[in-house]
Amino acid sequence: MPEKKHIVVLGAGFGGLTFTQKFRHSNARITIIDRQNHHLFQPLLYQVATGGLAMPDIAEPVRTILSRREDVQVLMDSAQSIDTEKKTVELSHQTLHYDYLVVALGMVNSYFGNDAWAQHTIGLKSLNEARRIRQRVLNAFEQAEALHDPSERQRLMTVVVVGAGPTGVEMAGALSELTKRVFKKDFRSIKPEQSRIILVEAADRVLTMYSEASSAKAQKSLERMGVELKLNQAVEDISEACITVGGERIEAESIIWTAGVQANPLVNQLPGDHNRKGQIATEPDCSLRGHPEVFAIGDIADLVDCKGVRVPGVSPAAMQMGRHVARILEDELNEKSKARPPFAYLDKGSMATIGRSSAVAEFGKFQFSGFPAWFLWLAVHLVFLIGFRNRLAVLIQWMYAYTKYRPGARVFEKPTQN
Amino acid sequence: MPEKKHIVVLGAGFGGLTFTQKFRHSNARITIIDRQNHHLFQPLLYQVATGGLAMPDIAEPVRTILSRREDVQVLMDSAQSIDTEKKTVELSHQTLHYDYLVVALGMVNSYFGNDAWAQHTIGLKSLNEARRIRQRVLNAFEQAEALHDPSERQRLMTVVVVGAGPTGVEMAGALSELTKRVFKKDFRSIKPEQSRIILVEAADRVLTMYSEASSAKAQKSLERMGVELKLNQAVEDISEACITVGGERIEAESIIWTAGVQANPLVNQLPGDHNRKGQIATEPDCSLRGHPEVFAIGDIADLVDCKGVRVPGVSPAAMQMGRHVARILEDELNEKSKARPPFAYLDKGSMATIGRSSAVAEFGKFQFSGFPAWFLWLAVHLVFLIGFRNRLAVLIQWMYAYTKYRPGARVFEKPTQN
Repeated sequence: MPEKKHIVVLGAGFGGLTFTQKFRHSNARITIIDRQNHHLFQPLLYQVATGGLAMPDIAEPVRTILSRREDVQVLMDSAQSIDTEKKTVELSHQTLHYDYLVVALGMVNSYFGNDAWAQHTIGLKSLNEARRIRQRVLNAFEQAEALHDPSERQRLMTVVVVGAGPTGVEMAGALSELTKRVFKKDFRSIKPEQSRIILVEAADRVLTMYSEASSAKAQKSLERMGVELKLNQAVEDISEACITVGGERIEAESIIWTAGVQANPLVNQLPGDHNRKGQIATEPDCSLRGHPEVFAIGDIADLVDCKGVRVPGVSPAAMQMGRHVARILEDELNEKSKARPPFAYLDKGSMATIGRSSAVAEFGKFQFSGFPAWFLWLAVHLVFLIGFRNRLAVLIQWMYAYTKYRPGARVFEKPTQN
Repeated sequence: MPEKKHIVVLGAGFGGLTFTQKFRHSNARITIIDRQNHHLFQPLLYQVATGGLAMPDIAEPVRTILSRREDVQVLMDSAQSIDTEKKTVELSHQTLHYDYLVVALGMVNSYFGNDAWAQHTIGLKSLNEARRIRQRVLNAFEQAEALHDPSERQRLMTVVVVGAGPTGVEMAGALSELTKRVFKKDFRSIKPEQSRIILVEAADRVLTMYSEASSAKAQKSLERMGVELKLNQAVEDISEACITVGGERIEAESIIWTAGVQANPLVNQLPGDHNRKGQIATEPDCSLRGHPEVFAIGDIADLVDCKGVRVPGVSPAAMQMGRHVARILEDELNEKSKARPPFAYLDKGSMATIGRSSAVAEFGKFQFSGFPAWFLWLAVHLVFLIGFRNRLAVLIQWMYAYTKYRPGARVFEKPTQN
């Protein structure tokens, strides 16, 4: 009996995890590597940041998800380097040889060359960042309540969100509800309705990937909720608790960065053409040119699919690519010597919430907004969450928050203890 | 109309919060101060540490609990000093004058003069410490899976719990279940059943505050679960990932300290007699000698009650003292000029769990153990948790963990990101 083929998967996000769950072959074994112990449901990360959900509600240990798969080894580790000639991946304590490599490393925050901004802002890519945002914002309001200087109070009660993509829009909406409405009942000295939530965007509208009609609806919802929009404005500078936008210096205790992402730096080590964001060009089947045994899937792939559509960096695309590569490898291991089919992206639509009972959704020609879009958003996110326990926990938190108008996870650890 | 009396409460644990919830008088206002934003249900903290519950399940913002009380101001701050002559409490940014002061500051970890041990161990008094224990233990097993050196693996898979009081016993039991049973299905390279959970105690039995029969039952349960007991053994030294007990050096990645507590250092500033643990002697009514306007309640009070019983440092006693002082102050503000009644502790019994379906409980003459005690433990803790949302969340997590044998909160943030 020949030795089993070894498939190494880098990253347990939507792409890498879907590949691992869908691929199964008696003549192969998988090692999946992630630097965290959990798969994270990123679309709901902003709710952890704004006290609506607890961390374990939207994350599940990779090892638990895959515990029944005896053919899968899960390692919490970071790949140090990839050698596509020797077909090896170097980890912290060992070097793995692969027969096939699936790179699904995802994106990291990007500051457009202003890396110094990173230390004055908090991104939203990990549980750790979500926890830090929650801690920063909630602690700022507690501090404001405990002192009397009006200008210091206003600074503490100001939050700036940079970038009006789905993450920035959802974040600004949730922050506005939290600070202007939920806090209103809880504080005695400060007036939470005087808090400022400022959303900064370089383009001329929010949610640029949506239709102009949806953008306008989202914008109206945000304004109704008291979010201050600064469109057509690029960030000029960020220092500690201060951001300069369009010549205006805004003092803000909390500055949240959702404006830019780039591919995980390790993707640079893969041979091929990298675009400005560090994404790598792939063949139509998601493999690398000259390396049919290496695949790049998810956000890091720079691919125009067989229908001429540029595959967007969204979770459904990553999951579809994972499934596509799983099928290709199963066929090859079954020695079906047919040509690899090209990847075809199926656009299932997109949605973003803007606070309580409001959302925009687009499905091909169909666009809708308001309560129906919001309700659909809830349902879809519950269905796609991994695990029954998570679905139940999130459903209960949402029901509670909706009826009581009180997100239920507003506890944080005192910052200085960290 | 005379100015309202100002009551300052230090600490929003069981004592301070109960006082604030029970006391209400039209001629008084309360300021309650805690260094955290939340009231913490400490009896379940070990379940957060061992991945059974999420942080927001057992904690609730103090402001939220008291949001309907317009007469109460909540401040997240730390008292810097107390001046019982001037009747002032100095906070970070302001000085408060009080007419009555209720000190309910609780206990902090104590290392019996070996303060250097603090940096090599993790206590279990706050959410932050619970999070760090979870991170430390789970990360150690992930590291063990990713390397091959057998002795390093054994070190990573060893947890030492110092102190076999209720917290230490419950912690050791939960850790044993997690590492030896739950992990068994999830890991491929390491053998989780080879993990070592070591419980160190200077006395000759576990749970010394219980009867010898209950101690023996708890001990048997722990041994059946594979916990290694080291009784009659004092800790000789603790350095980084190494503890010396009874002449034996034990290499252990995780060392958890539940062996000693002492009163919050601020209690030292109160005038009166302090015992070895820093607790302050109070008059029978819980006030300080010569200062009828200052009360010390909860764990920090050194009090033999009117029935001759030394009031123990447990949450029911703290709550009873809070209620007692609330009644005294209400009577005084109503100008009922009767003598203050002495505090009488009502022992409602005590309970400790030792893993799945096992516990010991004592109610006066009645002692029981095993499943009935465990079931009662669940019910009582659910009833005493604050808030409907928390009760529902905890109930669901427990039902899930019981039926699936999988605690549902085993996610952690990669340590180096901290």
